[in-house]
This record gives sequence, structure tokens and C-alpha cells, in this order.
Amino acid sequence: MTKRGRFITLEGGEGVGKSTNMAFVVASLEAQGIEVVSTREPGGTPRAEAIRALLLDPSPQEPLHTDAELLLMFAARAQHLAEKIVPALKRGVWVVCDRFTDATFAYQGGGRGVAVERIAQLEAFVQQGLAPDLTLLLDMPLTAAQARLESRLSSQKEQRDRFEQEQGGFFQAVRNAYLARASAEPNRFALINAHQALADVQADIDRVVASRVAQWR
Amino acid sequence: MTKRGRFITLEGGEGVGKSTNMAFVVASLEAQGIEVVSTREPGGTPRAEAIRALLLDPSPQEPLHTDAELLLMFAARAQHLAEKIVPALKRGVWVVCDRFTDATFAYQGGGRGVAVERIAQLEAFVQQGLAPDLTLLLDMPLTAAQARLESRLSSQKEQRDRFEQEQGGFFQAVRNAYLARASAEPNRFALINAHQALADVQADIDRVVASRVAQWR
Repeated sequence: MTKRGRFITLEGGEGVGKSTNMAFVVASLEAQGIEVVSTREPGGTPRAEAIRALLLDPSPQEPLHTDAELLLMFAARAQHLAEKIVPALKRGVWVVCDRFTDATFAYQGGGRGVAVERIAQLEAFVQQGLAPDLTLLLDMPLTAAQARLESRLSSQKEQRDRFEQEQGGFFQAVRNAYLARASAEPNRFALINAHQALADVQADIDRVVASRVAQWR
Repeated sequence: MTKRGRFITLEGGEGVGKSTNMAFVVASLEAQGIEVVSTREPGGTPRAEAIRALLLDPSPQEPLHTDAELLLMFAARAQHLAEKIVPALKRGVWVVCDRFTDATFAYQGGGRGVAVERIAQLEAFVQQGLAPDLTLLLDMPLTAAQARLESRLSSQKEQRDRFEQEQGGFFQAVRNAYLARASAEPNRFALINAHQALADVQADIDRVVASRVAQWR
């Protein structure tokens, strides 16, 4: 029987450097001969990416109700799990995912104020016990993250999506919710100080990942 | 305090004549001086209609997982309730809706085989007790409904959507699930024989609606 793959997620607010460090984690696992699928949420499959487009759509046509936002997140997740994550894990392939359900607790729970129990109910409904084996939480002070987001948006001339358009209080609540989850599940979470030179951030990530890989193999 | 509006839904499989009879119900309520919002599911608001487009999209890019389909249905419903149905009812306006949660029990439950309890869980999550005051179930034998659907699709040169592409066994299960719901809630449901001349169908609808209106006013 093939040994089940491992499921690693990267979490953090806007501007903490998830994309760069996603690539780093994937490359470092591959360098050790591990087959890896790199993916993201919301999205990760064609139909789930179509749901992502609805979630991020900043057009002011009408507000998106918090329950609708939450159900869309889990609809995309159900599709992503069924079509990509679970099949990969079953084949023995590792999955590295840019955001997962912790982001829902942080953004919809912390940011929007949806009750944690309501999110947990949908989590159980969709995941039926499946959870990441390791979650790297990239954390930095809000002002630093905001400055990085500004600089990325202006250099790439991107329009802000529905979440990036939120104000400071929202992001503070997101960060707090992430930190609370990390302290509630210290075995699954590794808290990474992302407010350092990139080489130092990646040295920290490398240490965490190497120790888990050694433990799992 | 404004008296809350009434919530009437029309249900039935493909080809039973819902559109024609929706217009008839709305016109007959309006003729009695009742202010009515006419709407449909999935959809009814700009963002919910965008979710509808994902649900009906017949492109063969990848299968839509049943859980994702179910969560998208309830995401569209949460948006529709928050932005349109509940505000109208609160203003004292009546809402007539082409399909609602009974369709989810019929299509996703009966048709796709999702456990009724899973649907009921999301129903409670999103609706928190809100239910139609009256549901008109248009029913006819499958062969007759299929012939009407064929004729509509060929005259309008429409492509079949994801649900219309299903096969006979699916529609039989949808019909059975609708009939089971109608017999479980005889007070809310009115079963309309749609396999008659249109004038006779509408006379039956008229009798049911008139008796409810008299009771409610």
C-alpha cells in the first residue's frame, strides 16, 4: 500500500511573503526527492478557481453576504479536496497549499466576525476530519505587511481584490485570529517570523520542514 | 408594524411548465392588489446569478463534486435571502420564487443521492427556520415532461445545462423526492397536476392561491 502523502499549508495575511516562501518550500521538498503538488485556496482546480473569481470580485454590484462568502469558500474547498488534494495524498504525493481552512477562521471568523462554531460546522461537513499535517504561519507586524502589499500592488498595477480592499482593523483581526489558532494547536502550527531578511525567514522554514520530514519518513 | 409578506415557491422538474405558471401566479396576486417580487433559484441577485452560472455550466472541464454543488446552491441561497427575499418579506411584499430548498432536496438529495440529513444541516445553517408559506408542486409523468423539455430546447436552440444533461433515472429520482416531500408536508405543499390543458392547470393553481390569500389576509 502506498504511504499517504503529507499535507502542508502556508498561512498568513496579505503582504507576508507567502508566494515566495511557497516556492521555497516546494523546491526544498523536491530537492529531497519528494513528489509535491503545489496549489492554493480558494481555487486549485478549474471549477474552484471560478469560485475564487466570484469571491475576489471587487465590483460594487452588491455586497457579498458573509454566509454566502463562507459557503463559497467551503464549496471551493470541497471541489479542491475531491479533485486534487485527496487524490494526490492517496497516491503518496505531498500537497503544499497556499492557504486552507485556517484562513477561513482568520478572514471570515476574525475579519468578518462569523462565529467560530459556524465555521467549524462547515469544516466538519466538508473535511470530515482531514486536516493539514503541518501549517507554517508567516507572521509580521501589520504596518510592515501593509507596506509590502502596497508596494506589490503599485509595481504590478493590480486592482485590489475584495479582501485587499479591507481596512486596518480587518487585518489586525485576521492576524489575531491566526495567532490564536497557532497557540491553540502548537503541534500542527509552526510560527515563522516573516519580518526578517528573506534568507533568515527561509532558514527558519527550512529547519521546521527538515525536522518534520525526518520525523515522517 | 408592517405585516410580513408571504413566501410562495413553485417547484417541479424540467418541462413541467414552471415559467408559464410563475407568471400566472404573479399576475393573479397583483390583480388582487398584492405587491409581489418574482424571483428564482439558484440566482435572483447579481452575485447569486453568478453562482447559478457556475452551477449550470455544462463545460466538461472537470466534474463538479456533489458537496461543492450543494454548498454552491446554499451560497446562492444565502445571498438571495439576505439581499432580496428577507428584505422584501420584511417590507410586507410577497415573494414568489421559481424553485427553493425543496429543489435541493429533490435534485441534490433525490437526483445525486446526497443524504437528506446533510442537506437539512445546511438548510438550518442558512435559513434558520425560514420556510415558504406555500409551495406549488407542478407534477406530471416523466415522459410528458421530457417531451416538453425536448421541444423547448430544440425550438430555442438552447444547449442543455448540467442538470438538463442528466438521464431518465435522475429525473425519476427528482420527481420521487418531490412527491415524498409533498406528502410529508401536506399543509405547506399543494400538488398540482400539470399534465392537463394549461387552462385547467391554472384553474387549479388559482383555487389553491385564492384560498390561501383569503386565509392570510
